[in-house]
Amino acid sequence: MNHDSSSRIVTQLKEWIARAAPGARLPSTRSLVAEHQASPVTVQKALQVLAAQGLIESRPGVGTFVREIRTARPSDYGWQTAALRTPHAQLRPASTAMRSAANDVIALHSGYPARELLPERLVRAALTRAARGDAALSRAPAAGLPELQSWFAHELGASMQAGVTPPAASDVVVLPGTQSGLSSIFRSLVGSGQPLLMESPSYWGAILAAAQAGVSVVPVPSGPDGPEPDGLDRAFQETGARLFYAQANYANPTGAQWTGRRGEEVLEVVRRHGAFLVEDDWAHDFGITSAPSPVAARDDSGHVVYLRSLTKSVSPAMRVGAVIARGPARDRILADRGAESMYVSGVLQAAALDVVTQPAWQTHLRSVRHQLQSRRDLLVTSLREHAPQAHLTLVPKGGLNLWARLPDGTDVDRLSADCERAGVLIAAGMEWFPAEPAGPFIRLNYAGPNPGAFPEGARVLGQAIERNGQ
Amino acid sequence: MNHDSSSRIVTQLKEWIARAAPGARLPSTRSLVAEHQASPVTVQKALQVLAAQGLIESRPGVGTFVREIRTARPSDYGWQTAALRTPHAQLRPASTAMRSAANDVIALHSGYPARELLPERLVRAALTRAARGDAALSRAPAAGLPELQSWFAHELGASMQAGVTPPAASDVVVLPGTQSGLSSIFRSLVGSGQPLLMESPSYWGAILAAAQAGVSVVPVPSGPDGPEPDGLDRAFQETGARLFYAQANYANPTGAQWTGRRGEEVLEVVRRHGAFLVEDDWAHDFGITSAPSPVAARDDSGHVVYLRSLTKSVSPAMRVGAVIARGPARDRILADRGAESMYVSGVLQAAALDVVTQPAWQTHLRSVRHQLQSRRDLLVTSLREHAPQAHLTLVPKGGLNLWARLPDGTDVDRLSADCERAGVLIAAGMEWFPAEPAGPFIRLNYAGPNPGAFPEGARVLGQAIERNGQ
Repeated sequence: MNHDSSSRIVTQLKEWIARAAPGARLPSTRSLVAEHQASPVTVQKALQVLAAQGLIESRPGVGTFVREIRTARPSDYGWQTAALRTPHAQLRPASTAMRSAANDVIALHSGYPARELLPERLVRAALTRAARGDAALSRAPAAGLPELQSWFAHELGASMQAGVTPPAASDVVVLPGTQSGLSSIFRSLVGSGQPLLMESPSYWGAILAAAQAGVSVVPVPSGPDGPEPDGLDRAFQETGARLFYAQANYANPTGAQWTGRRGEEVLEVVRRHGAFLVEDDWAHDFGITSAPSPVAARDDSGHVVYLRSLTKSVSPAMRVGAVIARGPARDRILADRGAESMYVSGVLQAAALDVVTQPAWQTHLRSVRHQLQSRRDLLVTSLREHAPQAHLTLVPKGGLNLWARLPDGTDVDRLSADCERAGVLIAAGMEWFPAEPAGPFIRLNYAGPNPGAFPEGARVLGQAIERNGQ
Repeated sequence: MNHDSSSRIVTQLKEWIARAAPGARLPSTRSLVAEHQASPVTVQKALQVLAAQGLIESRPGVGTFVREIRTARPSDYGWQTAALRTPHAQLRPASTAMRSAANDVIALHSGYPARELLPERLVRAALTRAARGDAALSRAPAAGLPELQSWFAHELGASMQAGVTPPAASDVVVLPGTQSGLSSIFRSLVGSGQPLLMESPSYWGAILAAAQAGVSVVPVPSGPDGPEPDGLDRAFQETGARLFYAQANYANPTGAQWTGRRGEEVLEVVRRHGAFLVEDDWAHDFGITSAPSPVAARDDSGHVVYLRSLTKSVSPAMRVGAVIARGPARDRILADRGAESMYVSGVLQAAALDVVTQPAWQTHLRSVRHQLQSRRDLLVTSLREHAPQAHLTLVPKGGLNLWARLPDGTDVDRLSADCERAGVLIAAGMEWFPAEPAGPFIRLNYAGPNPGAFPEGARVLGQAIERNGQ
């Protein structure tokens, strides 16, 4: 029995049937055998398939006929409304930061670095090597490839303060991107209906993951120096929350980097409340004029749950990140990951590890640092010159974004639409606020394609702000 | 400023410090400059890093000294007990089916096909090509690569019954493995606390995903012909459930394949209750003496949510699957996937599509079919000869497993342990029951390594059953 020729006959007969009138008689088996140069068994098999699909019917002793087919109806899925009930969380649609853009627009909206900032050669070579290795055909352990767990543990360990016990490789759970880590952490360490403290403004993906987990987000205002310890203390006290989500280095969107002292103070508040700090070190590879200094490097008591991403710095196709946590918290996160996706593709893990352990990776990071510096400076200069109404609270020491406050009363949605019509994409600030925005803000990414267009982008923005104020 | 040599000096000084007594004086900057052949700026930078990490302290005018370091304390994460509260769901530990096994055991416990059943050459070639392509460096759309969406839609469409509108490519959401799809479906279509009907026994991964989503599982007994429509009808009526999870082809663990008539009946019950059938077509590529016939091929009214996995048949490293759903259900699933992981690695998607569109893929599937047939038959014969007390309700027409009922009163845990001591791994049946097991069952996988050892495995099992009954 030949599966291939039988399905070839099925395909050809389907075309014939599509053109035939309902009730038309099919050619005899004998003539189908001749026409398709196949055995009678193969032809019979093809006819059985068509009969099983309801396309033909056989009347014994008479012949085989095309069945009458219901005409296509317009789809009505209205019944689903009742079955689906009201959703437990209204998940916002995908962020502006995820929008793809045409080549001819000036794209300041994105959350990802442009292709030219990626280690293309390293990524392609690593994937090619991984394709030849064992990882291409095997199942990775639930917590990740041991060598990659080690690498993550070692990286954080290397920045540990004196006397602080570094994490073990077994404290690391490899993730298919840190977004998955956020979901797992909020589900397994906070739980539906429980309060979660979060910097405001903060990463829209964390706000989304919190909504999905059904936790109740309590915003904690955060400025150029990070959150005020007193305010954080009050928020813990008032809500009974046990978890605070924050980005201590080059926060998205504000660009804030906490001082060592601020990190210590925040950690102290967290400890006092018997709580967790979820530190999302999203821009660890994007320090510009400072080095990232994780708060996690000060903790070995299991209070800091540390997230490290490689997706943005290595390649968006390399969905690999890690969470480092100690004690029962780590076990809960791992159990949730198991239920959610069992394990992370070993081929991506092997390739990611390959990239970050090449000597050329360090060279690449240095080059990225320099490029980010000139891109940042160019965008800052362009804004000061052409859009002075966009006030920068700080020039970030790292990360990918500027966070600008617009004149009071600016309609940010209208402004974004105006800019888009003029070929400039910007990201409206409200997506970064867990509740109401604290004012009219926009986020401008300086890691996108074509930095040469920054002055023009700033000019368009400046004019749009001007028109908006009239 | 040279980052590399500065971190080299940091590393070497850390080693020196580790061996030095607290309070020891470091060599002068001048001698460090000479020793490390670095500039004074680089040495200063290294000392600043060490000071920031609390390893050394500088006393101006006196020198730099090794700081006293707290001795490592034993970890106590007891405080987390209060912070974590009682978990909303006790997630079972990883299934037996996920255990790795040493080479010298007879592994009948696994859920995955052995390496020799995978299309190794195709996988390696596809990954190598994907490493050179655009997918290696770009972000894939949230719902998946359009070409892969098309492929999944087309595959299901090709088996559609006459007059049933085939799914569109946009009805497909690509997944990082179908386990992630189960989590998203249960979260977004059922929701925490709501009832979910599930065949019993059924796939342990689905039971786990249901526990994670916090839904309330209602078991519906299912035998060699699938669930009884009347029993299913009653379960819908009694519970008000809106979703039924099932495997209509080569169910895991029973191997049952529903007849076309049974599929029609089940679909009718589901329609009558304004509900969804989640059809997990996990073994679509593993038909042996029949072809898989998805219930989804009979539906275009959005009642069937169809899951298709490639992980098991292509490679465990290729975490790619899809869910095909229509209407608002599809939108809810996609929104949940976005919040959970944003998108699936494009390099895996491109490679998976490459594999399944090669002509050699069909040849490979035929060869797998023949191998599975002889493996299945060998294990069945071995059991009949050496372990006749293990009763097979049916010889499955596809899939990877036999499901055997043991004599009443068998202590399956003790039996598994006995077999393991004798070098044979089997999977105890209770993992496949959402509630209490309906009897003493075991699952035996015939797709593992070394089928030549099946007779010996059956002999060990037979003896262990014998001893267990005494």
